[in-house]
Amino acid sequence: MADCLADSPARALDVARGVTRLFARSQSFMVCEVPLPNGRRADLMGIDRKGKLVIVEIKVARADLMGDRKWRDYLDYCDHFYWAVTPELASLCETEDFLPEMSGLIVADRYDAAQLRDAADLKLAPARRKAETLRFARRAARRLAADIDPSLGDER
Amino acid sequence: MADCLADSPARALDVARGVTRLFARSQSFMVCEVPLPNGRRADLMGIDRKGKLVIVEIKVARADLMGDRKWRDYLDYCDHFYWAVTPELASLCETEDFLPEMSGLIVADRYDAAQLRDAADLKLAPARRKAETLRFARRAARRLAADIDPSLGDER
Repeated sequence: MADCLADSPARALDVARGVTRLFARSQSFMVCEVPLPNGRRADLMGIDRKGKLVIVEIKVARADLMGDRKWRDYLDYCDHFYWAVTPELASLCETEDFLPEMSGLIVADRYDAAQLRDAADLKLAPARRKAETLRFARRAARRLAADIDPSLGDER
Repeated sequence: MADCLADSPARALDVARGVTRLFARSQSFMVCEVPLPNGRRADLMGIDRKGKLVIVEIKVARADLMGDRKWRDYLDYCDHFYWAVTPELASLCETEDFLPEMSGLIVADRYDAAQLRDAADLKLAPARRKAETLRFARRAARRLAADIDPSLGDER
């Protein structure tokens, strides 16, 4: 994860770090830049204690947040979806476009994060959850195996 | 995985590396030292493309191989069980005690590995496989998250 979000602004990695700590407190562990079958790539993805899939989309710039027309694609691949943003962007995520009744909201910096809004349960179909859990497990194992043999690394 | 099998002889890590490469060729990625609910710890564990759980027990010393009275405990937690040994131990694994009709056999060194015997399909109960896949996924994610925050690391 050292090169997590290498193509994003440095503040995105700071937010990722804070979010990772927040979720770790409830024993959910986040993996960065997880490709999905629909061609999108989740900034952070994890599995909680109940086996529910969590996706976190990180935004650190207003233009990037306002211009994202494809974020709803994530909703087909998780039980809980969260925005994780820098403090100055939080109020934007309260507006209708960001589906506040459905999406959770986290404000984060490098050191920690606070959950401002809980995410609804999107109740993924069990077959989808099973398939994605398996993909997630195999991808995480692949990245770990790359520590022992770098040729096994995958593109993030 | 840099400190994979840190408490084992150096040759054990060599074997782990060779085995990891062997399985990677069929897109199965191995994670080292995976604790199981029964208190045992698998030297290597992975999930193959079909979602089957694979456990590999590494032996590099004759006394360790001959003295292992608990290895059958692994059979309750995988679909495929393999011995991975140094070349001089391979013939021992052909004997009855090591259940050759059930266990696979791999000979390995640091650079590669060869599969001498296929593992039978132990047909884990689906509920067990589901639970273990989830545990595996969450553990692998936890280890990856430790790259971003070392305090998240778990004991191997």
